[in-house]
Amino acid sequence: MSDTSRILCPVLSQRIMSAEEAAELIPAGAKVGMSGFTGAGYPKAVPGALAERIRRLNAENSTPFRISVWTGASTAPELDGVLAEVDGIEMRLPFQSDPICRNRINNGTMDYVDYHLSEVSQYAWSGFLGKMDIALIEVAGIREDGSLIPSSSIGNNKTWIEQADKIILEVNSKQNAKLEGMHDVYYGTALPPNRKPIMLTDPADRIGEQYMVCPPEKVIAVVETAAPDRNSPFKPSDDTSKRIAGHILDFFNREIEMGRLPKELLPIQSGVGNIPNAVLEGLDAGPYKDLTAFTEVIQDGMLKMLKSGTLKVASATAFSLSPDGIKEFDDNIDFYRDKIILRQQDISNHPELARRLGVIAMNGLIECDLYGNVNSTHIMGTRMMNGIGGSGDFARNGYLSIFVSPSTAKDGAISAIVPMVSHVDHTEHDVKIIVTEQGLADLRGLSPRQRAHEIINNCAHPDFRPALIDYYERALHSGRGMHTPHLLEEALSWHRRYEETGHM
Amino acid sequence: MSDTSRILCPVLSQRIMSAEEAAELIPAGAKVGMSGFTGAGYPKAVPGALAERIRRLNAENSTPFRISVWTGASTAPELDGVLAEVDGIEMRLPFQSDPICRNRINNGTMDYVDYHLSEVSQYAWSGFLGKMDIALIEVAGIREDGSLIPSSSIGNNKTWIEQADKIILEVNSKQNAKLEGMHDVYYGTALPPNRKPIMLTDPADRIGEQYMVCPPEKVIAVVETAAPDRNSPFKPSDDTSKRIAGHILDFFNREIEMGRLPKELLPIQSGVGNIPNAVLEGLDAGPYKDLTAFTEVIQDGMLKMLKSGTLKVASATAFSLSPDGIKEFDDNIDFYRDKIILRQQDISNHPELARRLGVIAMNGLIECDLYGNVNSTHIMGTRMMNGIGGSGDFARNGYLSIFVSPSTAKDGAISAIVPMVSHVDHTEHDVKIIVTEQGLADLRGLSPRQRAHEIINNCAHPDFRPALIDYYERALHSGRGMHTPHLLEEALSWHRRYEETGHM
Repeated sequence: MSDTSRILCPVLSQRIMSAEEAAELIPAGAKVGMSGFTGAGYPKAVPGALAERIRRLNAENSTPFRISVWTGASTAPELDGVLAEVDGIEMRLPFQSDPICRNRINNGTMDYVDYHLSEVSQYAWSGFLGKMDIALIEVAGIREDGSLIPSSSIGNNKTWIEQADKIILEVNSKQNAKLEGMHDVYYGTALPPNRKPIMLTDPADRIGEQYMVCPPEKVIAVVETAAPDRNSPFKPSDDTSKRIAGHILDFFNREIEMGRLPKELLPIQSGVGNIPNAVLEGLDAGPYKDLTAFTEVIQDGMLKMLKSGTLKVASATAFSLSPDGIKEFDDNIDFYRDKIILRQQDISNHPELARRLGVIAMNGLIECDLYGNVNSTHIMGTRMMNGIGGSGDFARNGYLSIFVSPSTAKDGAISAIVPMVSHVDHTEHDVKIIVTEQGLADLRGLSPRQRAHEIINNCAHPDFRPALIDYYERALHSGRGMHTPHLLEEALSWHRRYEETGHM
Repeated sequence: MSDTSRILCPVLSQRIMSAEEAAELIPAGAKVGMSGFTGAGYPKAVPGALAERIRRLNAENSTPFRISVWTGASTAPELDGVLAEVDGIEMRLPFQSDPICRNRINNGTMDYVDYHLSEVSQYAWSGFLGKMDIALIEVAGIREDGSLIPSSSIGNNKTWIEQADKIILEVNSKQNAKLEGMHDVYYGTALPPNRKPIMLTDPADRIGEQYMVCPPEKVIAVVETAAPDRNSPFKPSDDTSKRIAGHILDFFNREIEMGRLPKELLPIQSGVGNIPNAVLEGLDAGPYKDLTAFTEVIQDGMLKMLKSGTLKVASATAFSLSPDGIKEFDDNIDFYRDKIILRQQDISNHPELARRLGVIAMNGLIECDLYGNVNSTHIMGTRMMNGIGGSGDFARNGYLSIFVSPSTAKDGAISAIVPMVSHVDHTEHDVKIIVTEQGLADLRGLSPRQRAHEIINNCAHPDFRPALIDYYERALHSGRGMHTPHLLEEALSWHRRYEETGHM
């Protein structure tokens, strides 16, 4: 599968080896910075070869061989899955969505640290996480001077390449060669006290380089691959998603009418999944034109919006497309090339930029309580789902924070609106809008008691509404504080009831 | 008490009237933006006159006369106290510390909205909070052209003056006339999509104007006052505060040794109170030189550090000094004038600047749980103490977030370390360091289970340690998720026990 036209640097072409040979260069206990963000641009071959090596060595030795894995965000079965399966990951950060990985996190055999995605590179630069040993990075090509053409995500790659002593590159010939030039890698970063303003004032601005700098002397292996990114089929919007999208679109229209949003809205940040895609479809069907996106991930809906002119530019750190989306993108890359900019995640998610641009942040929630506290990560307070991702970066610092979910889960057994959330990722101070298929709660300017009315009446499922009102009323008259009324002895009883009976 | 030398604008000197006359101009239901931040620079006379008017009218009428009060942060008995006493406040934001006000918030007779202090002006500009009717602002003087010399705090004054249709000014001749020139009011703010980078890269930078712009035609009243700011006597550091400060200083020293902090540290943000003052005293006694502060409030400890050269510059939005501190400042204002810069709070607390400068954020906590979630605002989950203030602005976006508290409260009846906090203001994603007099827990790079060990062993009081370990161990082996082990049926039982027995 050699495609040496992708490796133009003479020095680095001498370091081409097999994935198995490269995996031998990763020692036990290593902190490895890997590429990969929402299933795009992760290394496809070396993690599998390393997992095989770990399986072999662990069968022979009593001292387990494990590494720490730092990525951009979630990867794929070929990375998180295979390494978790052989119990090869000691510590994982900052986001994952792999079922085997998740299982290890929740059965206590893997340590997982759940960071805001904007902050990971700062953590690494600062030395707070210890020294990174090896960077394992997928690229679309290596140029003559050794600089790198990023592939379908950038994530933390710039930082990993800077921080690691040794670098292993995977050159993936399945990545579209025309990705070249779509990236914007910003080299103005620094640790304080040497930081400067980031001179980006529009999602379309380019402030960096098209390529990643990579000192050839640090590269210990180059592995050629030809494998597609993980991608999931695009599911057509269901009725619930469409109703949620409808409430959001009504809200945007009202805000525009009231002069609180421009008619081009403000740069959109959108989580991945059915509901966000339904919102994007709704925007695309509406009267909107020349919108912009300043987000983490380019999903199918954004391609359609770019095609129709609803969206004029999308800035992100990664793609997350369906097979159909990938085909559309590959077939029409010349159209998309100048309308999509991929940045490193410490820029795509930067608090400075989210605040300045005034991002409209739309993210999913697992549960929300009467007072607007949102849980994005934990099932029943103890089990990690995926991670906070960039939701905190955008919700805290953006202009509008919108959290969405169907009002129930598990066929109606679970209410997304609960008396008290079992874990808090977004505090009452950061949550402006809650939306379910039932309706939209606009929490701006409301005290906790006022929020409770808005959330129960507009967002809770009718099956759970009476119980929520009952809890709230009894809390209000319990003799405890009436700023945030709670019955501490019952506050988490809905979760316990679910654990005990399978129904909240 | 007329001191017309402070009112040089001929047009505005014609609008001088009594506080009682000015109070008549505030209608029922008005949204009033008042000056004031941590007991500095709040209006001294009109709120009291208004309270008197409300008392009189409410005795006569059945429709209650109430207003909404928006400030910078906490004020004083002459504002929050008198208005709360007559039940004159319908809605209060964004921070308060008044006992009467707090009582109304917690008995359900006042709505209170607790915002990040950096975000309040954005809320007001955006129209999310509705239209502000009147701004009531204390100033140190009015210049010939009608521009204003701010007094001992700026807070949200620039925004209130811009947003309100009508303005009432209090000119306080007790404010030191030499405050003139110490302020830096930034007029480069805008709503998105028109925001530009804020070109501040050092706490000493000046990016704005010394005066506040104020259209004379909007000014409906000018009231002369001569009253001091609220101020509390400075209490010498107690043993607990000194031990907490000692742990923080040891930590700074280690970080400098490891090359993770420069020897001048990074700009310090410090909450107000005994513990922060003890830390400042500790820094002042140590080998530090040329430190900087980028914070909300200038407290006594900072004056001493400026005097000794430990601190070279302090940027804030307000003073909060003891009577001795005020005397020191007034007596030596020529020394302090070029070393202290007062800014509006949307700049002093701006996420862009906190991240760029890499602020070291030190703030108090009410309680912290095993996994590093921090409650800064609620007593036993339901009763508001003061508010989140700027702690979230700095903790989320700064370089280091340090939360401090004695390990127990109420003579040992309450543990500051609990299984699960009863309210979350700072999530596990935002809390890096916890310090009690027992020791320091460095949570950076640790998974939730690892954090639990660090917090129990280093921070919990020995009297509560066995019960915390017992809870944690049972949660770990309960069959629930082991990422964030909890026993939901017991998680808040310490708070219930305190409510029932007076002891956790």
